[in-house]
Parts: sequence; C-alpha cells; structure tokens
Amino acid sequence: MKNAIITGGTSGIGLGIATKFASQGYNLLLNGLEKNGEEITQEIAREYGVRAVFSPANLQQPEQIKRMVQQAERELGQVDVLVNNAGIQHVSPVEEFPEDRWDAIIAINMSATFHSAKAVWSGMKARGFGRIINIASAHALRASEYKVAYVAAKHGVAGITKVLALEGAPYGITCNAICPGYVRTPLVEAQIADQARVHQMSEAEVIEKVMLKKQPVKQFVEVQAIAGLALHLASEAASQLTGALLPIDGGWSAQ
Amino acid sequence: MKNAIITGGTSGIGLGIATKFASQGYNLLLNGLEKNGEEITQEIAREYGVRAVFSPANLQQPEQIKRMVQQAERELGQVDVLVNNAGIQHVSPVEEFPEDRWDAIIAINMSATFHSAKAVWSGMKARGFGRIINIASAHALRASEYKVAYVAAKHGVAGITKVLALEGAPYGITCNAICPGYVRTPLVEAQIADQARVHQMSEAEVIEKVMLKKQPVKQFVEVQAIAGLALHLASEAASQLTGALLPIDGGWSAQ
Amino acid sequence: MKNAIITGGTSGIGLGIATKFASQGYNLLLNGLEKNGEEITQEIAREYGVRAVFSPANLQQPEQIKRMVQQAERELGQVDVLVNNAGIQHVSPVEEFPEDRWDAIIAINMSATFHSAKAVWSGMKARGFGRIINIASAHALRASEYKVAYVAAKHGVAGITKVLALEGAPYGITCNAICPGYVRTPLVEAQIADQARVHQMSEAEVIEKVMLKKQPVKQFVEVQAIAGLALHLASEAASQLTGALLPIDGGWSAQ
Amino acid sequence: MKNAIITGGTSGIGLGIATKFASQGYNLLLNGLEKNGEEITQEIAREYGVRAVFSPANLQQPEQIKRMVQQAERELGQVDVLVNNAGIQHVSPVEEFPEDRWDAIIAINMSATFHSAKAVWSGMKARGFGRIINIASAHALRASEYKVAYVAAKHGVAGITKVLALEGAPYGITCNAICPGYVRTPLVEAQIADQARVHQMSEAEVIEKVMLKKQPVKQFVEVQAIAGLALHLASEAASQLTGALLPIDGGWSAQ
Repeated sequence: MKNAIITGGTSGIGLGIATKFASQGYNLLLNGLEKNGEEITQEIAREYGVRAVFSPANLQQPEQIKRMVQQAERELGQVDVLVNNAGIQHVSPVEEFPEDRWDAIIAINMSATFHSAKAVWSGMKARGFGRIINIASAHALRASEYKVAYVAAKHGVAGITKVLALEGAPYGITCNAICPGYVRTPLVEAQIADQARVHQMSEAEVIEKVMLKKQPVKQFVEVQAIAGLALHLASEAASQLTGALLPIDGGWSAQ
Repeated sequence: MKNAIITGGTSGIGLGIATKFASQGYNLLLNGLEKNGEEITQEIAREYGVRAVFSPANLQQPEQIKRMVQQAERELGQVDVLVNNAGIQHVSPVEEFPEDRWDAIIAINMSATFHSAKAVWSGMKARGFGRIINIASAHALRASEYKVAYVAAKHGVAGITKVLALEGAPYGITCNAICPGYVRTPLVEAQIADQARVHQMSEAEVIEKVMLKKQPVKQFVEVQAIAGLALHLASEAASQLTGALLPIDGGWSAQ
Repeated sequence: MKNAIITGGTSGIGLGIATKFASQGYNLLLNGLEKNGEEITQEIAREYGVRAVFSPANLQQPEQIKRMVQQAERELGQVDVLVNNAGIQHVSPVEEFPEDRWDAIIAINMSATFHSAKAVWSGMKARGFGRIINIASAHALRASEYKVAYVAAKHGVAGITKVLALEGAPYGITCNAICPGYVRTPLVEAQIADQARVHQMSEAEVIEKVMLKKQPVKQFVEVQAIAGLALHLASEAASQLTGALLPIDGGWSAQ
Repeated sequence: MKNAIITGGTSGIGLGIATKFASQGYNLLLNGLEKNGEEITQEIAREYGVRAVFSPANLQQPEQIKRMVQQAERELGQVDVLVNNAGIQHVSPVEEFPEDRWDAIIAINMSATFHSAKAVWSGMKARGFGRIINIASAHALRASEYKVAYVAAKHGVAGITKVLALEGAPYGITCNAICPGYVRTPLVEAQIADQARVHQMSEAEVIEKVMLKKQPVKQFVEVQAIAGLALHLASEAASQLTGALLPIDGGWSAQ
C-alpha cells in the first residue's frame, strides 16, 4: 500500500483528504498544529486500519520540514504522495499589510511547498513514482483585494507546480494544483452566523451575497470534492495529468 | 439511472467514454459516422446491460443535432449528461488552408457544441440537473502551427464552456472542458509505424521526438484517463466543479 | 509609408484606430457598413493627407473579403497591417439563442479574421513584414452570461492569434489581440441615458454599477487607448511582441 | 515632471528603462549594486537634463527598501512611478536547489515588489495617481526545468500585480507586469560566444537552437521594446490598462 504525507492534515480540508486517503488504504503522516494532533491521527489509523504517524513540524522551518519527511520515510518506509495543504491567511490593505504576516504566509503557503518537494524528491525519483498535490486556491489564478500575500503565495505555488511537473516528467513524478473557491469547513461555518449578524442578513443571504459573491454556483465547495480529486491525482491512472491548475470554484474563474 | 449522449461515441476517445459510462450503468445515445454504428452501440448495450441507441446525425446540420437530442429524450426519457466529443482535423499552412475545411471544422468541433447544448438545455434546467462535458484539447489552451481551424474551434469551445457554466450555475447544470494532449487511439497507433518509416527512426523515437515533442511526459494520454475524468465530472459530487478547462497533457501547457 | 486595412473602420473603435493610423501617415483601406463610408474615408484622407479607400465588403462572405484585400493591394500597393476590428453582438440565454445570430457572429467576429489573414498572408510573407492586429475583447479571456456566440467567437480569435503568431514567426509577421473591456463609443454613450431611466439611477451610478460592474476601474476604456496600443503593435519595434492577448479592461480579468 | 524609481536601474534592462524614461523628462531614483552606480546615475542626469539620485539599497532588506523610497520622496519630491525590475537567477534541479538561493530569489524577485509597493502606496493614493510596473518574465506565465525559485517568484509577482491593480483601481493607481522572453543584454551577449564553444555550434546556431529554443521568433527581445512598453504603461493615457500580464516573448507563451 502507498504512503502519503498531508500537511495541515489534522483539520479542515487536510483532514478531509486524510480521511479519504485512509479509507482507500493509504498509510499517512499527518502534520498539523492541533495540540491533539497525535490523537486525531491515531483515531484515523484505528478507524481505517492503516498506519498513521503525526508530525507537529513548524512549516516555517525548512529544517523541521526535512525532519518530517525523514520521519515518514523511517516510520512508513517511503513517501509516495505529498499533499501540500497547510495554509494561513491575513487580510489587510497593502499599505498596512504587516511584514511579519507577509513572511509567515510566504513561508507556510509557498516556500514550504518547495522545501517538502525537495525533501521527498530523490526517493520518488529513485522509485520512478511520485505524486505531489498542492492544495492551492482560486487565488492561484485570480486576485482579490487585501490579500496580497495569499495571492502572491498561491500564484507562486502555481509556478512551483509547473516546474515540478517538468522536472518530474522523466521520473514518473507528477505535480498538480487543486484550486478551490470558498470551501465549507468548520472554520467557515462558524463565520456564517457571525457575518449574518454583522450584515443584518439571513444566513442564506450572507452565503449568497457576501461569502460566495465571486462564485456563480451559490454553494460552498465541499471538502469531499477536493479530497476526491486529490485521490484521483494520486492514482497510477493519472500519470499523464501533470502541471495542471485544476479549479473547483463554482465558476469563479470563468467570468 | 442517468442517460448520456456521447457524440463521436462509436470510435476512439468517444467509444472509451461510452464504455466507461455504460460500465457504471448509464444509458446511452451514441452518435457517430461508422457504418456499423448501430452494431457497436448494441454490443455495448448487451455487454453492460444498459439501454443504448444510435444516431448517425451529421453534426454539421443543426437540424440533425436537434433531432438527435429529441431521439434521446424519446427513447431514453431525458438527457442528463451531454458529452461533446466528435471532432475532425485538417493540417495546412494558413495561406493554403481550404475554406471548406475551415467551415467543416468550425461546424463540427465548435458550433455543434452550441447546438447540442441549446437542445438539451431546457430539459436540464427544468430538472435542476445537467452535466455538459466538452472534450476539447490542449489546443483549447495553446496553439500549434498549421492548425488554425482546429485551434480556433477548440478555443471557441473553451469560451462556450465558460458561458454555459455561468448560465447553468443557478440550475444545477455544470459545463467543463477536458483538454487532452496527444491520445493513444487506434488511429494514432496506426500512424506510429508510418512515421517511423518516414523519419527513419525507431517507433520509440518517433513517439518521443516527433509525436510527443510537446509533451514532457513521453507517453500518449490514455483514453481511460479521459473517460475516468469525464465520469467524475458527470457525478453529483462534482456540482461545484464548473467552467474549468482541465488539461491532461503530460505537462505540455505548463512550459 | 505603410498601408493598413481596418475592418469596421468607419465607426466606433475602428474609426479611432483609422484616425490614429492616418495621423501617423498610414494609407488606409477602411471597411464598414455605413452608407456614407466613402465620405468618412475621404474625410480622413483629406485631413491627414494620406491615401484612403473604402470597401463595403460584407465580412460574412469570404469572397468579398478576398476582393477587399485585392482592392487594397491594387489601390494602395500592398497590405502591411491588417486590423480585424469589425464585430457584432447578440445577447440571449443559450436556450433561446437564435441560430442565425450564432452564424452571423461566428462569421463576422471570428471566421472573417481567418479569411482576411489568409488573403494578406502571402504578400506579408514575401515581403518579410506583416502585422495582424485583432481587436478581440475581455470576452476572449472571460465569459459573461447570455453571450455564448460572442464569447465563443472572441475565444476563437485568441486561438487564431496564437496560430498566426507561430506561423508568422519565421517571416517577420506578428499577430496579437487587444482585449478591451467596455469601451466608450458613441453607441455606448447613447445607452447610458437609456439605462439610467430603466434602472432609475443617475448616469454616474448606471456606469459604475451596471455597465462597468465587472471593471474595477470605474471608467470606460477610451478608444484612444486601444488605438495607441494598436499603433505600437504595428511598429517595426514590436517585432518580438507576438501571440499575445493584451487586456485593457480596467482590471476585469485580474479578479 | 514625474518621478520614477527603477530598481536594478543601473544595468541591463533597468538601465534601458532608465534611459528611456530620462529621455522623456522623468526624474529618477536608480537602485543597483554596481560600485559605480552613483556615476552611472549622474551621467544619465547630465545627458538628459533630469534630476537623478542613486540608492544602493539591498532589496533583501525591507528596511532598506523603505529608506530607498523615503530618499526618493525627500530628494525628488514624490514617487509617481515604481518600476520593480531587479532580479537574480539560479539554475539547479529541485533536489539540489540551495536553500539560500531560494531565499535570495524569493526576497529580491518577489518580496521586494511587495515591500516597495507598500512603501510608495500611501503617497500615490493621496495624490490619486500611481503607476507600478513589474518587470516579470515569461516565467510568470510558463515554467522551465531547474528554475523552481525563479518561476515561483515571477508567478508570485503576477499575483501581486493583480492584487495591486484591484486595490489601486479606486485611486488612479495601476499595476501591470511586462513578461519578456530572453532579452539581449550585455550579460546575455557575453554568453553567446561561450555557449557556441561549449556546444560546438556557430553563434547563430547557439542563439536559434539553444538560447531561443522556446521562442518561435528567433531574435532576442530588445531592451528598447521593454522600455517602450514600460513608458506607455507609465502614461496618463494607460489609466484603464491594469492588472495585465503583458508578454513580449516572441511567441513562447502562445504554443
């Protein structure tokens, strides 16, 4: 059976991907910041009968990323699939955008993708198989105001995706980016009621007119839709699908 | 169970999609030019235990497209999925490009997509569910010399795809385009030996250096990869994936 | 001095381009549907001291396009620059979109670009210099509802642009597309007051919230901005700028 | 008269832009690493009769970028135009790509664009006019092997460009990116003879087959073509041209 690293794998989109992969028999290394990350990981292991290990690596530290990959290689045997999913956000007009938020977003959302790919590369190359799946964003394709660091980082991930696809082509390594619009996660759900109060709208209205203003399909993207596509990209069958930026955004980027 | 129309469904990529859909229980209307189209269709029906009907509609004739859709509605009940797959090609420098080839390629590869979508639209809208899947090409994203009509038509299909995604968003209708690079079909396989003779190369060399010159992954795209993605797009789960141009091109469009 | 054909050159954007080119000494063939096209053309000739001829060619007829180019070659000597600018529009939901409007929009907005390029090609190739400038649209890059034919045609022009760039590269022929957002033309200005009445808004509001809803910069694109860029593309200096889709859209396509 | 900051303005593309802007009367702050940067700057001032000041700011240091902008505001009065042009390169397979090269390329080629834009923003906003011109690369649109940091950084700049266009739209601030292919600079010219020796080819062959392998037009992009477009983007007339990625790449990105 194959092994996958999933960063940010103990909550939100990453947890959805982890569960989906476990359900198909993948062994996992999950990385995350949750204090109970170890428990979350072991629960998945028990429920699906797979091996799973936890890494609390801080993705702002290249050294910790390297050790996370070494841990996966030591405890699972090898890394077949790398899902770069961890990400943070900060919203601010450019003239007030804090420099430490710029640095943190670029480090976690973009540079960590490079460092982790670099760390898994020689193993994937030697075995002639690898799948690198970057959970980017519609913001890898389009911009929004007040998100200069996030948009820069996600566009940067699009660039990394294409380079890795080209460098991996002779070695059976593919690299793709999934570009979701607004996704239904527990974090987002918590905001709906808040925003409804602020805007004095119904929850349905706040979803349609505020939160999903940019998405013609007035539903949040489901975590399962992203996890399903990630699973497909990880398969042997997807060997010619590489270097692609794959939107799941309810039509946002079409308009 | 759901029903699908697949144009060009009796050979090549279309036949692969037809088989895949039948294997998942879809009833089918297959359109094609093969003289034994009816037999091909009935063989699929028998093998997979689904209903399947054949239409020899000429896609250059809007009236015949309309009747093809009416046939599907009459014999299958309704059209849930439309796969616009039929296509022709002609290769020539622009100054010698025959006008009748321009007209035929634009009609079959592009305008038929509009006419068939128009014909299925009101049914899909009324039922609140529809999936339109256009088999476009890497040439919907990038150009090659001597293919002015094909590239224009496939770019046009990209535009149609986005408009239909936007118009369909309120009604549960999605529209996407799969953009393959060079695909392994019987037609293409037949060319390998020929080209090897012409170029005085081995068959392996002719694939790598001539036929897949633009694809960093030196394998043809498999029909099954396209059929698998089409099946995913047709699913209920893919409701937020719309308006997307999805390359399966071995890294062609990344470089 | 150089010679340019400008289709749709007797009104709106085309007339602005014609005037700009004349002011820089280009001789012109202007094509258009205006009954006083001949007068408009001769007025430009007189004002700027250039030669100018008029062609009432119907761009839906390839034969007439060919004769238009022959007229330019006969009366001006040769065609150095071709500006494909003529275009029509029709707005309708896809299920009601009239087939004759589809055919007319595809013919004028897209196929005419192929036919005129084909007609000027051998001359440009023989002389080692040519500039083909397609006035496309933001709709060559993005979609809007109810404009299926226009968006298909303009995306198709984007494809033609790239093919011609590749085929022209060895011969000093470049081809580019300018992709404007909403442009201030007499036709558009006439609509402002009408729309203000319909929407019961001030003219300023109707511009900002209705007409320029998609453009973050709340000003119409000026014809002069398009004409200036077209003039630059026509220059000898722009020899390496080819195959590009150049938006002037107030930020529309960035979001 | 208007004032412009040009980073990397004392050599190569930046020097070409500086000279062009000076020739049109712009006062300049030039930033660069040349030991004789001050002299280069004063020579331009003398030749064109404009004011020009030099800043040796290290663009890896946000604090120095801030002081560079303050210097321009103090010595020139205000910053109307910011040209982010400085850049470095490193070529290496991903598994050996040095982490310090990653950090330096991201800092100089990408993050400096954010820091400098942030520093000039409030002045531009207060005056209702600003032009930010990023000299990106075809690598902001497409990838090449062994350039993971450069491609990531330039894609990131594309993202920054779009965000700044949106945030600047209400304030008369535009932001665009010029995306050149391979440009003829003294540095590049020096490599031609070297590469000819290495590949045992003529200089003409090395240009066509090695250096310009990706560019259908077999000429280097001229610095003057970039400088001319930058000058146009800086003009009042270009107020609706914003958020655009403008290739000058000999057709590279069309194929």
